[in-house]
Amino acid sequence: MLEKLKHTVYKANLDLVENGLVIRTWGNASGRDKESGLIVIKPSGVSYDFMRPEDMVVIDQEGKVVEGKYRPSTDAPTHLLLYRTYTSLGGVVHTHSSYATSWAQAGKAIPPFGTTHADHFYGEVPCTRLLTQKETENDYEINTGKIIIEKLAEIDPLIVPSVLVNGHGPFCWGIDTENAVYNAVALEEIARIAFYTVLLGKTEPISQFLLDKHFKRKHGNDAYYGQNDDKI
Amino acid sequence: MLEKLKHTVYKANLDLVENGLVIRTWGNASGRDKESGLIVIKPSGVSYDFMRPEDMVVIDQEGKVVEGKYRPSTDAPTHLLLYRTYTSLGGVVHTHSSYATSWAQAGKAIPPFGTTHADHFYGEVPCTRLLTQKETENDYEINTGKIIIEKLAEIDPLIVPSVLVNGHGPFCWGIDTENAVYNAVALEEIARIAFYTVLLGKTEPISQFLLDKHFKRKHGNDAYYGQNDDKI
Amino acid sequence: MLEKLKHTVYKANLDLVENGLVIRTWGNASGRDKESGLIVIKPSGVSYDFMRPEDMVVIDQEGKVVEGKYRPSTDAPTHLLLYRTYTSLGGVVHTHSSYATSWAQAGKAIPPFGTTHADHFYGEVPCTRLLTQKETENDYEINTGKIIIEKLAEIDPLIVPSVLVNGHGPFCWGIDTENAVYNAVALEEIARIAFYTVLLGKTEPISQFLLDKHFKRKHGNDAYYGQNDDKI
Amino acid sequence: MLEKLKHTVYKANLDLVENGLVIRTWGNASGRDKESGLIVIKPSGVSYDFMRPEDMVVIDQEGKVVEGKYRPSTDAPTHLLLYRTYTSLGGVVHTHSSYATSWAQAGKAIPPFGTTHADHFYGEVPCTRLLTQKETENDYEINTGKIIIEKLAEIDPLIVPSVLVNGHGPFCWGIDTENAVYNAVALEEIARIAFYTVLLGKTEPISQFLLDKHFKRKHGNDAYYGQNDDKI
Repeated sequence: MLEKLKHTVYKANLDLVENGLVIRTWGNASGRDKESGLIVIKPSGVSYDFMRPEDMVVIDQEGKVVEGKYRPSTDAPTHLLLYRTYTSLGGVVHTHSSYATSWAQAGKAIPPFGTTHADHFYGEVPCTRLLTQKETENDYEINTGKIIIEKLAEIDPLIVPSVLVNGHGPFCWGIDTENAVYNAVALEEIARIAFYTVLLGKTEPISQFLLDKHFKRKHGNDAYYGQNDDKI
Repeated sequence: MLEKLKHTVYKANLDLVENGLVIRTWGNASGRDKESGLIVIKPSGVSYDFMRPEDMVVIDQEGKVVEGKYRPSTDAPTHLLLYRTYTSLGGVVHTHSSYATSWAQAGKAIPPFGTTHADHFYGEVPCTRLLTQKETENDYEINTGKIIIEKLAEIDPLIVPSVLVNGHGPFCWGIDTENAVYNAVALEEIARIAFYTVLLGKTEPISQFLLDKHFKRKHGNDAYYGQNDDKI
Repeated sequence: MLEKLKHTVYKANLDLVENGLVIRTWGNASGRDKESGLIVIKPSGVSYDFMRPEDMVVIDQEGKVVEGKYRPSTDAPTHLLLYRTYTSLGGVVHTHSSYATSWAQAGKAIPPFGTTHADHFYGEVPCTRLLTQKETENDYEINTGKIIIEKLAEIDPLIVPSVLVNGHGPFCWGIDTENAVYNAVALEEIARIAFYTVLLGKTEPISQFLLDKHFKRKHGNDAYYGQNDDKI
Repeated sequence: MLEKLKHTVYKANLDLVENGLVIRTWGNASGRDKESGLIVIKPSGVSYDFMRPEDMVVIDQEGKVVEGKYRPSTDAPTHLLLYRTYTSLGGVVHTHSSYATSWAQAGKAIPPFGTTHADHFYGEVPCTRLLTQKETENDYEINTGKIIIEKLAEIDPLIVPSVLVNGHGPFCWGIDTENAVYNAVALEEIARIAFYTVLLGKTEPISQFLLDKHFKRKHGNDAYYGQNDDKI
């Protein structure tokens, strides 16, 4: 079942490695089938050298395995909570990409320092609070999803398609799995140049009007970047 | 029409990716045909995986599409203003390359810290002022060109073939498209080593006489670098 | 003899280069045969371009060459002391990987700044004291092993599978040679992101309960990461 | 003539690019023929895409072209002065490799912060003084050689096989061209980790006795690194 989505999710996991965002098995990608609402996700801790599309695990939105011989990714409960909360999401990606993870480890949001950021994230990339001891020891992965949602609050997740989990790393998402991977790539690059920018002494983000200009140039009804059919 | 220039501009866009200056579609290159004055430029937001030479867009100096089924790059008005203002330019390149963009985000010119810089840029690589809200909201891409020209002022653009747009990233140019790509590569490298140099505690640029020596060793009538035929 | 282990150790040395941890011959890997207790180790200073599996040197636990036409790695005495002291070790790796070596040169332990660290190291990656002049001039390689062991003290080497030798670089180990290589890769990445994290202004490590959660999610009896058969 | 040396020098120039030390034509390598004393050096500014072994230029020790249709590298006078001064040198390499150049731009010697440094350089990698205006404007390349020699003073160039030219970049050498390339690779890596080490807060170099131990472990009569035949 869902062979095409399995292939997409399989390829997304490899793309994360190819784009330098994931070492070994340190990441995971998933996708949601629009019709059935079922989720396809990477199996936990299976070497990418041997992983095949048919090894992807199909789970329902509560996490019950519908098809697959492997356990789903340990982070599946986080993915699922995001899918249940935000019906607009079609793909979720979690990485430990170096620069984004460093911001997460520092417990700091990534300020919009330039138009590269504004082209992809409409405002800072937020960083969650730390989990309490109780939240860590029980239902850790669900609570990780909860503090992401708590942090986004009123923000549309598709205009800020990534959050840094404090002391951990980034979760990214999008309208589908490929889009989530794209956002993970964009996040890592803006995390990298924000890091250099900070070391060059900058502390203030760009103006709201420049942020508006660039984000809206690429996204929404007034977008004029790209060809007519690739607006998000 | 202009098949050779289309191929050059097409290849220039791929070269930007291959040289690590551009991720996905985050950049654009163009070239000017000397005879007709027409400009060939990358289409906006078309994936490089599918882009072909014949997808390049031919526009006149006012931006009217002369040939091509795609929209030209969103940044075309900036390219065009540079071509109209500086008749010596044959190619323009815009990237978000990591180190150059970080200097732009920090709002700082790149000082000439060594001879690697002096070999390519005759003085600091300037950084523009920020655009006002009005300049951002109306004719943004033309105004981006205007603040580049305002910053260059009396400087010959071929001896300082790049400017950093504040809060945005670099625009580079040259006598033709390949030369503009070359200057974008040189800029990223000198931005990188200038970044390291600053972190090692240096603040002062090299002397004017060392800058003169290296720039003139490679460029102009007294150049003695290279073979006789490749002086710029 | 031990042809399979020779091949594993040979391949481990190449993997260190392929993973960007070793330049030229600047590293070494070894493995212990469980049955015989013999050690297979890289020859000293042989170019990886010409090295073959059969060039690996077989030594006993005192360092006597049992088979092989080459001298064993200069660092063999350090490997051997670790094997003699910790019977759980099946592989040892020494590299000068850039970020881990920088922490070693700075004489600083790598604090657990996030879950990427906690997934692999149960606590900080310790840094040894400096060797005295006498320890340096006599039995240098054995004394290097001694200060590693002195630093680990009561710590199980399999839960903190790397130590930084002050002014030198990392030694890593594991249940077998592949596992030791994996830990060297993990170490370099956590050293890299810890470096960035420090530059972003962080000084405090993550909480003990988050460290516990992530380490135990992957290791030991209560692990629930991966499939049933790949717990360490 | 000297076809073998031409091939060696040709390959050395490509190796500098492959090892990430040289972009485009920003470097040069040369070699000295032991018997005739003639020097083979890269032509100036010829693209590596088209360069062939037979394009290497043969010059005598005064710089007179003995064979070759191209001009020799602009930096030939610096190479020649080093060859004339130090009869032990068989190869010279000049690069603008990023980290070494950054130290040169900062005008700082690279302190021996660890054993990776000590394995290759017996003491700090020195940085020259700046050239005066007069020295820059006349006989610039010869004067560049002179301040390298002035800085080395009593030091044997084979135990400190690189010097940073202030505001410029590194010159490296060795017993032959391959050895000079090897030293350029080693220099770039120790420049890189020294940069990270400084940012982690270290200022003091390692002790003289650790420097002695590691350098002498690899070089000279008491060396015990490598096999018997590859001591330098």
